[in-house]
Amino acid sequence: MYIGIDLGGTKVSIGLADASGKILQKETAPTGPDVVAQLTELIRKFAGKQTAKAVGLAIPGQVKNGHAINMPNIPQLNGVDFVTELKKNYPAEYVIENDANAAALAELKYGAGQGCRNFIYVTVSTGIGGGIIIDGKLYAGTNGTAGEFGHTILMPDGPDCACGNKGCWESLGSGTALAKMAAAKVESGAQTKIKELAKDGKITVETIVEAAKLDDAAALELLDINGYYNAIGIANLVNTFDPEAIVVGGGVSFNGDYFFQPLLQRLKMFKLLNPENSIKILRAGCGKDAGLLGAIALVLP
Amino acid sequence: MYIGIDLGGTKVSIGLADASGKILQKETAPTGPDVVAQLTELIRKFAGKQTAKAVGLAIPGQVKNGHAINMPNIPQLNGVDFVTELKKNYPAEYVIENDANAAALAELKYGAGQGCRNFIYVTVSTGIGGGIIIDGKLYAGTNGTAGEFGHTILMPDGPDCACGNKGCWESLGSGTALAKMAAAKVESGAQTKIKELAKDGKITVETIVEAAKLDDAAALELLDINGYYNAIGIANLVNTFDPEAIVVGGGVSFNGDYFFQPLLQRLKMFKLLNPENSIKILRAGCGKDAGLLGAIALVLP
Repeated sequence: MYIGIDLGGTKVSIGLADASGKILQKETAPTGPDVVAQLTELIRKFAGKQTAKAVGLAIPGQVKNGHAINMPNIPQLNGVDFVTELKKNYPAEYVIENDANAAALAELKYGAGQGCRNFIYVTVSTGIGGGIIIDGKLYAGTNGTAGEFGHTILMPDGPDCACGNKGCWESLGSGTALAKMAAAKVESGAQTKIKELAKDGKITVETIVEAAKLDDAAALELLDINGYYNAIGIANLVNTFDPEAIVVGGGVSFNGDYFFQPLLQRLKMFKLLNPENSIKILRAGCGKDAGLLGAIALVLP
Repeated sequence: MYIGIDLGGTKVSIGLADASGKILQKETAPTGPDVVAQLTELIRKFAGKQTAKAVGLAIPGQVKNGHAINMPNIPQLNGVDFVTELKKNYPAEYVIENDANAAALAELKYGAGQGCRNFIYVTVSTGIGGGIIIDGKLYAGTNGTAGEFGHTILMPDGPDCACGNKGCWESLGSGTALAKMAAAKVESGAQTKIKELAKDGKITVETIVEAAKLDDAAALELLDINGYYNAIGIANLVNTFDPEAIVVGGGVSFNGDYFFQPLLQRLKMFKLLNPENSIKILRAGCGKDAGLLGAIALVLP
């Protein structure tokens, strides 16, 4: 019995899988005020009459020595050593990992990275994160903070990033950055269907893609700029890691060609230093379950 | 008997070392027109009456499956499978590696990286290169081109880089870039001692450091800007790799505090995502012998 939990700031998913990583049972709920009690209850429910020996946990933060050390999106766990608390409530082995790292592991075991020894996983969603697979294993760094590609600086005079720097990849190429660019475009009075398509006046990536589907020039231009920034970030990863492939996932990437075509087009503009001067860009295979599958992969034998 | 060779575009060094990596004998010569003949002669001379079983080779290019695939600085080896040729002339095991990767290995075994499991080596000289040490081993990538940090883009609208991109780290923070900035400053008519200090009108990094030693404001400003660019590159490496340390070597770094003080000062401006929000910057310990020691390290047991 293998239990994995993908803990996020807004929702938590729990899954039960067999030894092949197939999810047999799954549940998603909003993240509650008492996360420890909520997770304990979910684990008990999913274990049922059996005993879960190990639980994998993907968390939106950093992990050091098996403990979460920084989860800005789950303030209710501030100062709570929640793995220790969970162990008290439900004794088991808890294996914990950053969610983007867990997703990279899921891609290695069940997704687009199967068969690769070295690849880089990039997730483009609200933010930008990633994971590093080297020699068929996750490399998480000295403190578990490796793979924070979203906070590599691509433009020192660029927009403010939540981390405190300016012009981080995340501040340029993420879904949040794309939506901000669209809002600025609408505000500037540009001719675009984005404004009328925005529900309650709120422009999201979905609004932009919807407009692009109607051949809206402004929307297509915004997606192209997004592809440009993400191409720079990916070119840097290729020259840094010389990987076999880059696996790209995350919510924004699930828009398929609307996301990938501008990215691939723009990527051709950059010189890559590997012998082929090109890189395999693979679309992530685990979809929205990447974090959960990664959490399960943490405890599979 | 351990022989290492550091092959460069302008000069070639050969060294004989004992099992501890101590160089017992060393020779440096200009790189000749017939590199294979030159190396064969040097190996024969250094092996003397004994037989060298293995020769380590650090080369200014990329390595794939034990063969050099790209050495733009040694055009006379274009299209020559020089390891195969060497083997014909002097049968031995040849272990070949990119020179920056070899230097990273030297720092791991004999230099500033001793005792680290994970560190990143950066060399700032004419260009900018590097090497990745993960789990106490060199990670060279799928094709041997990992660690080309000098060609990560830090400023997409920045100066042209020799690789074809714009605003690569190398085009901003290398010794070549620093000298170019100084030349532009002199040309702009700025008040500075750099011009009179330049021998034959040629401004080099040494000229700038010499001026800085005389408290020349323009020279100090140029070194500060150089530190700023290198700080961005290093901040990106920290957020990418979460290493224990960054080891910095290469000719420009051998200017000591004139190089490191602005770098360290500027590095404080950037948010690093590791728990300490800071990183150990270590000055490389192998000096100018890094490539040669790395070549030797390739064949040591």
